[in-house]
Amino acid sequence: MRGTQEFRNLLNERRPGHSLPRPFYTDPDIYALDVEAVFNACWLMIGFSAELPKPGSYLAMTIARTPIIVLRDRGGAIRGFFNSCRHRGAQICPDGSGRAAKLVCPYHQWTYDLEGRLQHAGQMPENFRADDHSLRPIHVEVVAGVIYICLGETPPDFAPFRRALEPMVKPYNFENAKLAHQYVLVEKANWKLVMENGRECYHCAANHPELGITFPVGITEKFGAEETVRAQNYCMRMAKHGLEVGPDDGSWWQIARFPLNEGMITMSPDGQPIVKKPMLDVDGGDVGSLRFAIEPHNFCHALGDFTFMFSIFPVGVEETHLIAKWLVHKDAVEGVDYDVPSLIKTWDMTNRQDRDLSENNQRGVNGLGYVPGPYSPTAEGFVLRFVNWYCEHMRAFAGVPSANIAEVA
Amino acid sequence: MRGTQEFRNLLNERRPGHSLPRPFYTDPDIYALDVEAVFNACWLMIGFSAELPKPGSYLAMTIARTPIIVLRDRGGAIRGFFNSCRHRGAQICPDGSGRAAKLVCPYHQWTYDLEGRLQHAGQMPENFRADDHSLRPIHVEVVAGVIYICLGETPPDFAPFRRALEPMVKPYNFENAKLAHQYVLVEKANWKLVMENGRECYHCAANHPELGITFPVGITEKFGAEETVRAQNYCMRMAKHGLEVGPDDGSWWQIARFPLNEGMITMSPDGQPIVKKPMLDVDGGDVGSLRFAIEPHNFCHALGDFTFMFSIFPVGVEETHLIAKWLVHKDAVEGVDYDVPSLIKTWDMTNRQDRDLSENNQRGVNGLGYVPGPYSPTAEGFVLRFVNWYCEHMRAFAGVPSANIAEVA
Amino acid sequence: MRGTQEFRNLLNERRPGHSLPRPFYTDPDIYALDVEAVFNACWLMIGFSAELPKPGSYLAMTIARTPIIVLRDRGGAIRGFFNSCRHRGAQICPDGSGRAAKLVCPYHQWTYDLEGRLQHAGQMPENFRADDHSLRPIHVEVVAGVIYICLGETPPDFAPFRRALEPMVKPYNFENAKLAHQYVLVEKANWKLVMENGRECYHCAANHPELGITFPVGITEKFGAEETVRAQNYCMRMAKHGLEVGPDDGSWWQIARFPLNEGMITMSPDGQPIVKKPMLDVDGGDVGSLRFAIEPHNFCHALGDFTFMFSIFPVGVEETHLIAKWLVHKDAVEGVDYDVPSLIKTWDMTNRQDRDLSENNQRGVNGLGYVPGPYSPTAEGFVLRFVNWYCEHMRAFAGVPSANIAEVA
Repeated sequence: MRGTQEFRNLLNERRPGHSLPRPFYTDPDIYALDVEAVFNACWLMIGFSAELPKPGSYLAMTIARTPIIVLRDRGGAIRGFFNSCRHRGAQICPDGSGRAAKLVCPYHQWTYDLEGRLQHAGQMPENFRADDHSLRPIHVEVVAGVIYICLGETPPDFAPFRRALEPMVKPYNFENAKLAHQYVLVEKANWKLVMENGRECYHCAANHPELGITFPVGITEKFGAEETVRAQNYCMRMAKHGLEVGPDDGSWWQIARFPLNEGMITMSPDGQPIVKKPMLDVDGGDVGSLRFAIEPHNFCHALGDFTFMFSIFPVGVEETHLIAKWLVHKDAVEGVDYDVPSLIKTWDMTNRQDRDLSENNQRGVNGLGYVPGPYSPTAEGFVLRFVNWYCEHMRAFAGVPSANIAEVA
Repeated sequence: MRGTQEFRNLLNERRPGHSLPRPFYTDPDIYALDVEAVFNACWLMIGFSAELPKPGSYLAMTIARTPIIVLRDRGGAIRGFFNSCRHRGAQICPDGSGRAAKLVCPYHQWTYDLEGRLQHAGQMPENFRADDHSLRPIHVEVVAGVIYICLGETPPDFAPFRRALEPMVKPYNFENAKLAHQYVLVEKANWKLVMENGRECYHCAANHPELGITFPVGITEKFGAEETVRAQNYCMRMAKHGLEVGPDDGSWWQIARFPLNEGMITMSPDGQPIVKKPMLDVDGGDVGSLRFAIEPHNFCHALGDFTFMFSIFPVGVEETHLIAKWLVHKDAVEGVDYDVPSLIKTWDMTNRQDRDLSENNQRGVNGLGYVPGPYSPTAEGFVLRFVNWYCEHMRAFAGVPSANIAEVA
Repeated sequence: MRGTQEFRNLLNERRPGHSLPRPFYTDPDIYALDVEAVFNACWLMIGFSAELPKPGSYLAMTIARTPIIVLRDRGGAIRGFFNSCRHRGAQICPDGSGRAAKLVCPYHQWTYDLEGRLQHAGQMPENFRADDHSLRPIHVEVVAGVIYICLGETPPDFAPFRRALEPMVKPYNFENAKLAHQYVLVEKANWKLVMENGRECYHCAANHPELGITFPVGITEKFGAEETVRAQNYCMRMAKHGLEVGPDDGSWWQIARFPLNEGMITMSPDGQPIVKKPMLDVDGGDVGSLRFAIEPHNFCHALGDFTFMFSIFPVGVEETHLIAKWLVHKDAVEGVDYDVPSLIKTWDMTNRQDRDLSENNQRGVNGLGYVPGPYSPTAEGFVLRFVNWYCEHMRAFAGVPSANIAEVA
């Protein structure tokens, strides 16, 4: 329906400052466009280079319906490929992580090296050209240990984001980190509802008692810190350690460092560090949180002692999978320096509360009674930003002129 | 597909006196039209005012995909609203029943009074007008304690039905009743097959041994009672008590009182009363059954000692939910005056048998071998009436001239 | 979408010698065409006359969405009908096998004789004509005890296949066999991926250790036996017993007898007979395997001591049901002459391994990274043949001229 008048009308129907017309949250045809225009074309954050410690280490996952594999090649570089054999298309590596010297398709044992070149294909005729049957690569960018991929042929310009993110993230030393925990949470809600939920804290005070202990739930869109004396002190203290505060942003990304609640050092049940071996060893880990986020699907919070990653992947018009990961220093010993239940508690509770809220939002939006409502310009600035980004992105995709909505800054 | 030639052709393909062409039972696009034209536009019977005993008592449920809430306001009137917050559309009250002083959306705590007015919305700007963000009302009519709703903007004329139903139902004193039991039964069949099943007793003798003990399974469309001496005696006896027999009907409703099988007083396993405290205290409860029913989805049987309600709600092209409720006098004490297993047995068995029949009907209709077959004019008059009503309703919706099918009276 | 340009383009997009473009494996609209053009129109193999031992014995099953019934009539002939009542379409016999003197619809007891004539329909008016409401027949052909059906009005010419198959199958005496075991295996893969899997042994060496003990997994498309001295000996030995070797084929069928691995007599865990009472009592059962197969969905292996049947039926675009049956001599006594776990082990393991491979193939084909790849002309000749047959069949169905692909012989 990409070029249809119906879709153009829907895009034009959207009222500035308001949530989207119902079909954007419920229509399978628009979902298909979302996958094509957004998840098959934008940069996505999928994990950390620390998850690929050695040549042959790989991470296989499915983006919407597309299986991909990201691996460390023999030279140590991180590469990505579509995870479909060039013979009959079978998935080569099962989703998950592992290590392999070569990529061998389980179906007919077509074998690829870690650079994606076909090395073996049995019983093929003389005129078969292995060179024409390499694995198809995907775009990969690694920024100070954070892995971004893009399935599209012509990815959006990555350089400005890299320039902004690299110095902010570098002090956390992600290359020397390890994955402490990860899971997939199934949410029966459209991916945009899940993202709208994840882009504001207007709902936090009433719904996230655990998060609210440490997270400044009254925070507004800027995640800035210029308003209070405490914030000024935080900025000065960070500057002393050479840590920029920001905020910095682009059309599809935002980066900012901000202080937690008074007296709170990390996002733990009591605000005190839960990993003895810190990632960023400054002021006893009292460095607030570095939030870095990209549209359409991700945010991370890097704290003194651990980093939390939140990336969502759509599975259907009303089903979304959240991949959550927790990263700690690679020398932190589980059971000695940290325990997983404590490490994940704050965000795990928050994730599940948000899942319930998003699913409930979906149920309400499904109804005849739903009409798009107004976002709070102060409390939902990041939501507005996400929704505006989405609408502009889809307008461009559908060939509809920009709506020229001033972004809420 | 509402205005398409394909749909017009399908409507014209229907052969008078016969079941519908296959796509009406299997096509997801026609299902979507059914929801729009029928369930989002017609009067629906959802329950009893006795379920809303006090101001703030509410009943929340989902009609197809639309969550609604029906409640008793501070003045004691029964009102209905779409159960979607005017902010971002979240469902306000979870499906089920309860009581609340105000309606508070769980997402961002937008708060509405029992009349639907927005009373609180945090962090909204100066120019935000709460008056523009009241809950959207739905139409509600209460007839002697029976609640009807309509989601459409312009409901069908309700007055004639009210005039006919009110005097028939009033003697049962539904306002002084209470809900003794309710459940939802999932049926994997198109809602029209479920209704066709519920509109005839041609299948009863062989399939409903429990119901057949008390229910006159040979009954024909009229549910009338003019044919036999026993029926004449019944009419005279009812007249003596001021109870009209009918039948009365309109294009989308039917009302009639009729006698049960010889010697049977109520629809119980042995035909004897199972609730000691009667709803209609006349002749020891020996008043037959008052059947009142509306297209597209409901029938009730009011007996001397209890009332059974059957309302179906479509969930998908091949999935329908039956909501069954049993009402008794509010002073009847469970475990003393009645027990639930005995109370529900006859209709519960019947519901489950009908579910199996409808699902089996769906399987057969799905096949290439299905061709619409003829209804028995005597034994399936009410089915014919339902199907004719449906076809005429859809013709009007699609802008196709009436087929002028004479209704079987 | 049958006549659409989109479908024509897709058909023309197919590259000779290569697997199909993605939508053929994933698109619900193409799946609907497959059902219409293939499963509702081609000959299908559903079982054996031995499953219908007496008049009234029936076998009911569902082909895609169409319930059918095949039975032995009073005269002993095997007939087939659509299993939908001519009244309101209910399924008459539940799927499975059984025996009945008459076919009585469970809904309203419309009753048909074993020849499909309506004998009873209660409460129908004077002018109702039972003769107009016989069960609708389907085409049935029985070849030496093997049952083929066709749901289409004008089946493909069956005579050449019968002429070829009858003498090859007759010696196995299927009329004197019995069903020893059967099951349905659910595979979450498009039916064509399941068939491509079932038409080659390129994947066998690495994936079917159990099958590989006895089955010549290096076998090529011909299933011929002319190449080796051992094969020549096999041919001479079979000729001595009057057993033709073939191969023989038509556009939609293939028949050939071939030797198993050296020293192996049947497809059992150790290659030795597992049924003491043989079906074909020649050379101690050492007769290799008779493979007979039809497009779109079936193959059988008739061995000296048992016969294995593999027929698939599509259920959805990414779901296929495999019906597997094992036939033995009717006088073989379970627990004495054979035990089921040993009998089914080789093919049961193989079926489950193939299910996993097909589902994995589906996951890979779903992805953006999939591009149709080249089949091995030697190892995947039968796959190519199946895919070419499918493409030609769909071209004819869609009114697209033949691609004139030379069949791999």
